[in-house]
Amino acid sequence: MALVVIGGVAAGLSAAARARRLDPHLEIVVLEKGPVISYGACGLPYFVEGRVRKASQLIVYTPEYFHKERRIEVRTGTRVVSISHPRREVALESGGSVRYDRLVIATGARCDTSAFAGSGQPHVFTLHTLDDAECMRRFLDEKRPKRAVVVGAGYIGVEAADALRRNGLRVTVLERSPHALLRDEPWITAAVRKQLEEHGVELRCGVSVQAIEADRVADVPCDLVVVSAGFKPNVEIAAAAGVEAGRSGAIRTSERMETNLNGVYAAGDCAEVTHLVTGRPTYIPLGTTANKAGRVAGANAAGGRERFGGIVGTSIVGIFGMAFATTGLSVEQARREGFSPVAARIEAQARPRYFQGRKTTVELVADRATRRLIGGAVIGEEGAAGRINVIAGALQSRLRVDDFEQLDLAYSPPFATVWDPLLIAAQQLMKEL
Amino acid sequence: MALVVIGGVAAGLSAAARARRLDPHLEIVVLEKGPVISYGACGLPYFVEGRVRKASQLIVYTPEYFHKERRIEVRTGTRVVSISHPRREVALESGGSVRYDRLVIATGARCDTSAFAGSGQPHVFTLHTLDDAECMRRFLDEKRPKRAVVVGAGYIGVEAADALRRNGLRVTVLERSPHALLRDEPWITAAVRKQLEEHGVELRCGVSVQAIEADRVADVPCDLVVVSAGFKPNVEIAAAAGVEAGRSGAIRTSERMETNLNGVYAAGDCAEVTHLVTGRPTYIPLGTTANKAGRVAGANAAGGRERFGGIVGTSIVGIFGMAFATTGLSVEQARREGFSPVAARIEAQARPRYFQGRKTTVELVADRATRRLIGGAVIGEEGAAGRINVIAGALQSRLRVDDFEQLDLAYSPPFATVWDPLLIAAQQLMKEL
Repeated sequence: MALVVIGGVAAGLSAAARARRLDPHLEIVVLEKGPVISYGACGLPYFVEGRVRKASQLIVYTPEYFHKERRIEVRTGTRVVSISHPRREVALESGGSVRYDRLVIATGARCDTSAFAGSGQPHVFTLHTLDDAECMRRFLDEKRPKRAVVVGAGYIGVEAADALRRNGLRVTVLERSPHALLRDEPWITAAVRKQLEEHGVELRCGVSVQAIEADRVADVPCDLVVVSAGFKPNVEIAAAAGVEAGRSGAIRTSERMETNLNGVYAAGDCAEVTHLVTGRPTYIPLGTTANKAGRVAGANAAGGRERFGGIVGTSIVGIFGMAFATTGLSVEQARREGFSPVAARIEAQARPRYFQGRKTTVELVADRATRRLIGGAVIGEEGAAGRINVIAGALQSRLRVDDFEQLDLAYSPPFATVWDPLLIAAQQLMKEL
Repeated sequence: MALVVIGGVAAGLSAAARARRLDPHLEIVVLEKGPVISYGACGLPYFVEGRVRKASQLIVYTPEYFHKERRIEVRTGTRVVSISHPRREVALESGGSVRYDRLVIATGARCDTSAFAGSGQPHVFTLHTLDDAECMRRFLDEKRPKRAVVVGAGYIGVEAADALRRNGLRVTVLERSPHALLRDEPWITAAVRKQLEEHGVELRCGVSVQAIEADRVADVPCDLVVVSAGFKPNVEIAAAAGVEAGRSGAIRTSERMETNLNGVYAAGDCAEVTHLVTGRPTYIPLGTTANKAGRVAGANAAGGRERFGGIVGTSIVGIFGMAFATTGLSVEQARREGFSPVAARIEAQARPRYFQGRKTTVELVADRATRRLIGGAVIGEEGAAGRINVIAGALQSRLRVDDFEQLDLAYSPPFATVWDPLLIAAQQLMKEL
């Protein structure tokens, strides 16, 4: 039995490693188009910033490690150009081919810069691979740019803006939609703008970038451009082989992470997963999901029977020390999904003042009919990750706000207030329901 | 209609405030034996430490506030000596009496030092009221003691040890049981000991203190003694009036926080609540529970219909910057309660090393038969409160470890690792089940 995995980053390597654990005899080959594998893509902005000194610090495992310790063959610089499922074979750019019995597609996603004229210029970068980050860092060191434009105010966009600002550049972020962080709440965008502006970064929403000029983008002068827009799942090879995509354009999967083709699995930034709040397929490409879904794909490809229940869409991003964390559905998303959303938002001390506690903002969204929590957001300088995780757990457990309000949360002055902001938000929400 | 509340700290004032909100016409009287009300008792060690400069910083509301803003009459220095329920009347030490239609008993608990001969000496303190803390702080400033003994390694004991050590004293903590923090896990006691010793505090377990001498306790020389043992609910007045206690010795309550006497409620450190993991009454006196249960008692006393579901026993304490957080049942407790507990304990990075992330320890306990999570512990310097709260939420939601392992937790390098320590612990636990 041979397992072939296309893609050697989060989902692909999780799949390969898990398959090996379940079947010591399986032949496992990982085909990676890039020069390195197993890097923490979420750490790239911190390499650009300079906090991570060497790119190698972001690499978790080497091909040698997988070969020696896991008996997994990893071929870097190996691009798959097509899949022939009837022949159970993938064709390589180099001309060769590799046979498989089971296939895991973990081809990831890309930043599609083709929509922007002039994106091929040497001062224009994406921040998707380790190579991208190294090129941008080198450009910063050698060319000493003074002004940057970041196209796209998603997670990578604001992280890149933060990193560049810390390197002394003047930074403007241009976002096509009216909102930052891929969200639709005006209050979150306002909070992001406030935090960026307080640290000298300008955010302009509703700006549609058509072309990148040599010295400006949409009339903003600059000598460095980061494109963090046009994120697209890499599904072309899969699609050509008959693998079906969902409505999002990413590969449709079962809860076993299997595609419509028997024995062909998909996971990571190229695949859909189930949203546990709506019960419907969703495409929210994140490293956590890639690792978990990859693990399940690998287990099943090795003959196991595991399922990936799904996600609730939890994410967090740090902007100059402030955390912006969200999970579940926004009010608008909930309405579109057929819920009758009711929201409450409060601001409260995260810890007592005598422990230098700061204010934190919590929003909770519930469905009026069932009183179930269906979304939440936490913005603050401390404890935001823990608090969004409590909400995420509640969404996954289908908790009603009535039960959430009674959660027995930890209290001691160095860590929290006696009424945690989460509970204050829940009390407020119960008044609204 | 008149509501009388005995006790003006956490539970009592939560009850009074909530009752007022539900019934604007109710006559509400709070009787507090001490000189002040509404102080954050959990902040007392930080006042002793000196971090909280003025005792007034720990006072949240004054009697004047309650009078003016809530039309609640608060009488300080007013000790209730007996309750006559047939006459719906409480008798005061001063000789007067107060009529009630509904009564909330929030008499709290005390540190019973009578078990220790010599506890009346001027260098012996408890740390239960604001007055206690002010006396101890004054003693520190005026007498400049050099060596302290803390009797009892519960939360207040270790917090007092931390506070005194930071004031330059040599500190020894003597604990009668084999374990610290009222727990029964050797690994937690070992971690507490390590943390205390690294900061110059000695912990001796299994030491039964009989007497406090003028210059030593159990052969440990000292010129300051803190007694944080012998914690007992104040139930004598209630018991004399026919209010029944549970097996713990604290007042038995319904989920409406009503006692066996119709119209008489109890909440806070004098009352039992339901443990949601075992489904049985428990006595775990904490400020969070006092506030929540008091609120429910007040609502029902005012004619509302609210319930306090119960607790899962979540607590956290900081010792020299390290958090020790627990929730639910330990393996031993679980066994005694009739579960077949299985535990897994892991150590993992709480955040990436390039963000100065530290190791954190997570233990999860599940029941073998149902695979339900029934307990957990987190020890670490960062994120422990958030992580124990996620476990607490899971206990309250009766989550199986299989679902817990799939939680969609937030990840970004400044906040967590891609596999959160909680998920690594869950994976380990699934292997053991």
